[in-house]
Amino acid sequence: MAEVKLFRSWSSSFALRIVWALKLKGVPYDTIFEDLSSKSSLLLQYNPIHKKVPVLVHNGKSIVESLVILEYIEETWKQNPLLPEDPHDRATARFWAQFGDDKVFPPVLDVLRNEGKEQEEGIVKAKESLKYLEEELKGKKFFGGEKIGFADIALGWLAHHENVFEEVTGITLIAEDEFPLLSEWRKTFPDAPVIKENWPPRDKLVTKFQAIREQALVQKLKMAEK
Amino acid sequence: MAEVKLFRSWSSSFALRIVWALKLKGVPYDTIFEDLSSKSSLLLQYNPIHKKVPVLVHNGKSIVESLVILEYIEETWKQNPLLPEDPHDRATARFWAQFGDDKVFPPVLDVLRNEGKEQEEGIVKAKESLKYLEEELKGKKFFGGEKIGFADIALGWLAHHENVFEEVTGITLIAEDEFPLLSEWRKTFPDAPVIKENWPPRDKLVTKFQAIREQALVQKLKMAEK
Repeated sequence: MAEVKLFRSWSSSFALRIVWALKLKGVPYDTIFEDLSSKSSLLLQYNPIHKKVPVLVHNGKSIVESLVILEYIEETWKQNPLLPEDPHDRATARFWAQFGDDKVFPPVLDVLRNEGKEQEEGIVKAKESLKYLEEELKGKKFFGGEKIGFADIALGWLAHHENVFEEVTGITLIAEDEFPLLSEWRKTFPDAPVIKENWPPRDKLVTKFQAIREQALVQKLKMAEK
Repeated sequence: MAEVKLFRSWSSSFALRIVWALKLKGVPYDTIFEDLSSKSSLLLQYNPIHKKVPVLVHNGKSIVESLVILEYIEETWKQNPLLPEDPHDRATARFWAQFGDDKVFPPVLDVLRNEGKEQEEGIVKAKESLKYLEEELKGKKFFGGEKIGFADIALGWLAHHENVFEEVTGITLIAEDEFPLLSEWRKTFPDAPVIKENWPPRDKLVTKFQAIREQALVQKLKMAEK
């Protein structure tokens, strides 16, 4: 058994970050697939506060929160660095990773979960944030420059999950004419070997997020009727 | 003129983190005090996305987002490390810093800005999170152990601003009998030399946050009348 264990779900985009980072570094690990509707006692023991995946367990000690885990991986296994050497460039990578979680993910989720006015507000906010990412990609292949780095891994869900959301909602947030560089990155990033080999099955994700959208809309209807 | 510049406001708890980190490391810097109701063009140029303080400018390059700036400071000036050496301990410090921003700050702000049901919900959520911090302090003087570290700096607002909020709202979130270790830390942390010397004036903060609370309550009343 490997000394590294990853608790994940098959669909979590946050857990995928850790898969990609470990694979890019060539770190062997065991996977424990969690059913998030019935979490294992081991998961609750390793992440008692957030009770979420991903959890990385290394030599019996757990690390939680995907961006914190990425930093841990970077510091523990030095090969194939995810962060550049220069402190300012490192700060830039960390900035975009956090920006994705704070300013892109929430409105994109609003688009998935709503219709009408709330959805439109989500679209406006998401595009506002996406414009900054488009700008950042100028003259670069990846957010990390010539190779996949910390910010690419953190923003990877935009290439994958968000693409699935577009199919589910019928709303294209990242159109080629509006976001040409981001659109290109959405093709280049998942085409990299390690990423391509660890891409959850699209059909299954479409079904999952269709159900999530429907459930959210029903929930809203119920709230409105109250 | 120093090669390091800090854009801050007199009252921002996020900016205070940077003041404390630079002082703990003994890094000389110039301060630019911003009036947040009329931001300078330089601030907008250095932080065009979030348009917020703090911004650190080092050798002409800007770094934004207080936790990202703390990492930058740690990597650029190695003396008096804020993070421990062991990667797992580093992950723990980063976890608590982020936990404070994600799970403590928002409900504490809800308590400040609301009354009635919303305020009560804020109290419950805030205390739920504070319990984890209390637990984390078991057997330790600071979150960083024997000395002030990354998480202490990130959570410093709990010793300072939150204390002011308690005066403004009349609600004691961190009572000595309920949170003895956290209460003790709230005395020990601000008593450390560098911290003590860089503590914004309490009276002025009380006035400021009284106004913020009143404004929020009036705003809510207006929304309810619509």
